[in-house]
Amino acid sequence: MTIETLSTVRSHGGTQGVYKHASATTGTDMTFAVFVPAHAEGAKLPVLWYLSGLTCTHANVMEKGEYRAACTEHGVIFIAADTSPRGEGVPDDPEGAWDFGLGAGFYVDATEEPWAKNYRMRSYIEDELPSLILREFAAADMTRQGITGHSMGGHGALTVALRTPDRFRSVSAFSPIVAPLQCPWGEKALSNYLGEDRAAWGVYDACALIANGARVADLLVDQGDADNFLTDQLKTHLLVEACERAGQKAEIRLQPGYDHSYYFISTFLAEHVGWHAERLKA
Amino acid sequence: MTIETLSTVRSHGGTQGVYKHASATTGTDMTFAVFVPAHAEGAKLPVLWYLSGLTCTHANVMEKGEYRAACTEHGVIFIAADTSPRGEGVPDDPEGAWDFGLGAGFYVDATEEPWAKNYRMRSYIEDELPSLILREFAAADMTRQGITGHSMGGHGALTVALRTPDRFRSVSAFSPIVAPLQCPWGEKALSNYLGEDRAAWGVYDACALIANGARVADLLVDQGDADNFLTDQLKTHLLVEACERAGQKAEIRLQPGYDHSYYFISTFLAEHVGWHAERLKA
Repeated sequence: MTIETLSTVRSHGGTQGVYKHASATTGTDMTFAVFVPAHAEGAKLPVLWYLSGLTCTHANVMEKGEYRAACTEHGVIFIAADTSPRGEGVPDDPEGAWDFGLGAGFYVDATEEPWAKNYRMRSYIEDELPSLILREFAAADMTRQGITGHSMGGHGALTVALRTPDRFRSVSAFSPIVAPLQCPWGEKALSNYLGEDRAAWGVYDACALIANGARVADLLVDQGDADNFLTDQLKTHLLVEACERAGQKAEIRLQPGYDHSYYFISTFLAEHVGWHAERLKA
Repeated sequence: MTIETLSTVRSHGGTQGVYKHASATTGTDMTFAVFVPAHAEGAKLPVLWYLSGLTCTHANVMEKGEYRAACTEHGVIFIAADTSPRGEGVPDDPEGAWDFGLGAGFYVDATEEPWAKNYRMRSYIEDELPSLILREFAAADMTRQGITGHSMGGHGALTVALRTPDRFRSVSAFSPIVAPLQCPWGEKALSNYLGEDRAAWGVYDACALIANGARVADLLVDQGDADNFLTDQLKTHLLVEACERAGQKAEIRLQPGYDHSYYFISTFLAEHVGWHAERLKA
């Protein structure tokens, strides 16, 4: 085994596991969570990836996401990754801010020092972790993958899917950062990880990718209208406009009264699981 | 207002709130959580109480319980209380153990020093908090109450309901401590809170209450068979035997593979909400 099982627990008729492995990509140990619903011996199940937001690990959605009942109902494997490398020697925000460094990898491959060695979350999510899942989880049908995520992880889900559309049959997001080039979180992260040349940033910006011709089959986004980060950071309207201009099919829903928290995500995540399942099982 | 609103957030179409008030019963500030589903103006909704287990506050089930979708579906208000008094001057286990003192009130009215002043969780749950809910939550129909709980809180739900059967139309429990007189957790807590005279303990022991003639209309219990505490502390079989001997109607289910955690509770809590709703709305 190239992975270590940290815990497994029975829940909603399936198995919620937490695993650790030595990542060649980040040069650190990485932890991730996988929920596998009960299934017939030898069955292959579609896979839904979940990328988390700033400050989170695999654990937030695992504890608060309320996805397992839906995954069992629809027969979907649910994978939650970490948001950055961690451990001794991994550099962090010099001021210890929560919006950069540890817990804030932004799903990019950093090119600037001191970040370039460890902060390679794009390659980790696009290459290493899927290979590991294919090798270690016999029930995972990697020909049927969907992806979703929250906030910074919504940004991750959108940009990973827009860059590798053949890998994913379905993509959705909760409260995504839709245009890192046009918000303070994105500007801070990308300038530090990638340097000041903004030409290098475009592959990490969902709106820019769509404007430059990237497409996915379909897109579902939920955004709370009482989200404190909506106006300054998330700017959902930029994604609405980018999709309209490009003719990208998308359902982008403003949910009245909801904020940025897992109380919002858990309200709609089961519905997203069903939406993905429909496409993954079509 | 006699309560302070610490937070409210929209979730599953309703409002999850956290509130604080100065408790005359415990002599401390007490915190509790209430979920109120969306409802018509002036509607009265049945109420389901949830009592938590050792080390918990109102927050554990609020974050991990996965009850809100079911409460919205069935139109049930969900109240989660704290497990002990807290704050400056409240005595705790002298060795700082997690099974006594703070987070471990056992839903008793302590009679021994130094506990008697603050540790009055029986009166708090039976009298003060219901009065407060009646006064402050217009939608709460206090003529239709159910109660459930986990572990020490399962013990609390069973014993509160058995002592005050007219108050509750429905009672259920997850992994309850069914016989505190016959397990180390119970013996430690009751001897400290109530003194060494075991005659005073019987009103805090579900099996003893049933043996002594207390009854509830019906009872639903879920217990994981992979629960580490099953053999030494929970002893579910004692409740099965007590109900059989007494002719107490009960469905006590051993759930294969499940442990003591919220991964277990969240698997079955929605079903319990529906079970209570059926009885509360009959």
